[in-house]
Amino acid sequence: MTISLETPCVIIDTDILARNIQTMADRVGQHNTVKLRPHAKTHKLPSVAQLQIDAGAVGITVAKVSEAEVMAAHGIGNIFIAYPLVTVSKIERAIRLSEKIELIVAVDSLAGALLIEQTAARLGHTVQVRLEIDTGLRRTGVLYEQAPALAAEIARLPHLRLTGIYTFRGALLDGKPTLDVAAAGWEEGQLMADLADRLRTAGIAIEDVSVGSTPTALYAAAVPGVTEVRPGTYVYQDRMQAQLGVCELEDCAGSVLVTVVSRPSADLAIVDGGSKTFATDVQPGTNPLHLRGFGHIHGLDDAFLTRLSEEHGMLELGPLAQAANLQVGDQLRIIPNHICSTVNLHNQVVMQRGDTFERLPVLARGMLE
Amino acid sequence: MTISLETPCVIIDTDILARNIQTMADRVGQHNTVKLRPHAKTHKLPSVAQLQIDAGAVGITVAKVSEAEVMAAHGIGNIFIAYPLVTVSKIERAIRLSEKIELIVAVDSLAGALLIEQTAARLGHTVQVRLEIDTGLRRTGVLYEQAPALAAEIARLPHLRLTGIYTFRGALLDGKPTLDVAAAGWEEGQLMADLADRLRTAGIAIEDVSVGSTPTALYAAAVPGVTEVRPGTYVYQDRMQAQLGVCELEDCAGSVLVTVVSRPSADLAIVDGGSKTFATDVQPGTNPLHLRGFGHIHGLDDAFLTRLSEEHGMLELGPLAQAANLQVGDQLRIIPNHICSTVNLHNQVVMQRGDTFERLPVLARGMLE
Repeated sequence: MTISLETPCVIIDTDILARNIQTMADRVGQHNTVKLRPHAKTHKLPSVAQLQIDAGAVGITVAKVSEAEVMAAHGIGNIFIAYPLVTVSKIERAIRLSEKIELIVAVDSLAGALLIEQTAARLGHTVQVRLEIDTGLRRTGVLYEQAPALAAEIARLPHLRLTGIYTFRGALLDGKPTLDVAAAGWEEGQLMADLADRLRTAGIAIEDVSVGSTPTALYAAAVPGVTEVRPGTYVYQDRMQAQLGVCELEDCAGSVLVTVVSRPSADLAIVDGGSKTFATDVQPGTNPLHLRGFGHIHGLDDAFLTRLSEEHGMLELGPLAQAANLQVGDQLRIIPNHICSTVNLHNQVVMQRGDTFERLPVLARGMLE
Repeated sequence: MTISLETPCVIIDTDILARNIQTMADRVGQHNTVKLRPHAKTHKLPSVAQLQIDAGAVGITVAKVSEAEVMAAHGIGNIFIAYPLVTVSKIERAIRLSEKIELIVAVDSLAGALLIEQTAARLGHTVQVRLEIDTGLRRTGVLYEQAPALAAEIARLPHLRLTGIYTFRGALLDGKPTLDVAAAGWEEGQLMADLADRLRTAGIAIEDVSVGSTPTALYAAAVPGVTEVRPGTYVYQDRMQAQLGVCELEDCAGSVLVTVVSRPSADLAIVDGGSKTFATDVQPGTNPLHLRGFGHIHGLDDAFLTRLSEEHGMLELGPLAQAANLQVGDQLRIIPNHICSTVNLHNQVVMQRGDTFERLPVLARGMLE
């Protein structure tokens, strides 16, 4: 079937989308004390955030003040900016936004906390903050062992209200990527619940213990003491999550529609999507996923998107795919390795409802922070 | 110096930009019979395309009909869409555009040529086309040995005017990436000039022999018989080109301004740009470039952007960089490995003229084809 859409474009199957949203909400809901606060980084769409909230999410997570501003302007009323704000202009914008919606911001250093304190004091506000903890990924987050001392200092600042701790770790064990997402999730939750207890013992009233990624959220949610999970990718799912065993390829709501533009030889088809269409941050062949190529080709199990230039995708065809006799002009649907960074390349996605297709601008993408 | 811009953002130094444009125009201009038709994929900005034309370029090259439409709407009057058009809707759009500007389209298969022929006949137009040749990159382009037969068939189609051949090969020798860009460019030009001669002998009036990338353009331009070069990256330059010896890091007009958001340990700084800010299509450590990390950190020679997550860049600090004592809130300028795909991630770039900064929307990015 040829779809009358210009290619390349990202198509989101709204039935699968609805199912993914409901499934995660139901599963998190089995743990009575755990809230779901999805990360909107995957879709960057207020309308999808609203679907998540309608299904039971307490609010959403974003990475940027600008994303929070767009989401709030479109009716999302409860947002956690899970990223340290360290410049006055962004802190001011966040405080202004907190006059309109429930807003929580992140902090992971005394320098950052003091800047928020000074700005909040000047504007006559109190800011709800969560302390980010590094549980092994080595990116932002105060080192685990240094967290109690920093939390104590932050708790003393009069214009900050330290109500929680959070971490992001993903599918990681012993500092290395892992396929054992159950163990990873359990350990992540355990580390954070333990830390929250230590902070409470020290007199700091930690309410929120927020953890979890798409692969680890449900395992971390089962840990007593965890109060919130923040999966993002689950909303669309992708080939990486399928490889991790978190979903099946049939659960992937997002795919890229491309057109075969050239058939230079029997074993090669060129499609009109390259590295400006498919994200390249999850590379083929890397541990522990060992993905072959940059996406899964729907219906052609031995075709592999092995090379990309900016606007060209080189599809190596095995015997079965060669037998399919692809023609110039044929369309293919490809599930990308990483849907979050793939959507981020596109100004629009196409929402598919059965046989109808609706273009939707990805409102919160391409934002300066 | 702290620049009062929200980060992350791409900054283009307009002095370096002007110098890069002039240098390429001058060098290509030394070959009297060779025209310059820059690929606009790097900047995707009509205003920069106009600067290239003002400096002597005959027109520009793009990859998509939509990009051509945006460029034409902003005054660019001579465009080559160097990409096979294989769907009726795009061919129609191209033909409509050719009523307003000088337009050349690409073809690399009989199927594509016949579709253009039928569409052009229906609309009562004649379309100027160039045949794409595969000179070793194995992406689009008819195989070199099959080109004469296909060219003969295309030349017989009454609504197509086959005026040229073109190829893209980049820094490639014997099918592999190479640092010997002089040999690569010479061979590329030679292959195409030879083929043009064979086609002319066969009675096909080939006027344009269009070749070249930023690394190979000037070497290919020196080959007798080459009539046009299409470099793209040179306009901004980047770390990859510097590593290839094509330019110095000082010639890079484009950089990404980021802010240090976290200093979790002495050997690590986290900046607010990840894989949604820096392109990941030119990976660290890959042959023949052996680049360390995803960008060159201005002023910190032993700091390396070794890991990216979506919104985090992990900067490993060597002894010298550690001595610089980076603070949370400090800004850094980073020259990305690949500027074309990095610019493509951003809705806007910031044009720097001395101490003044002007935001410019990247008008032709994010286009559906």
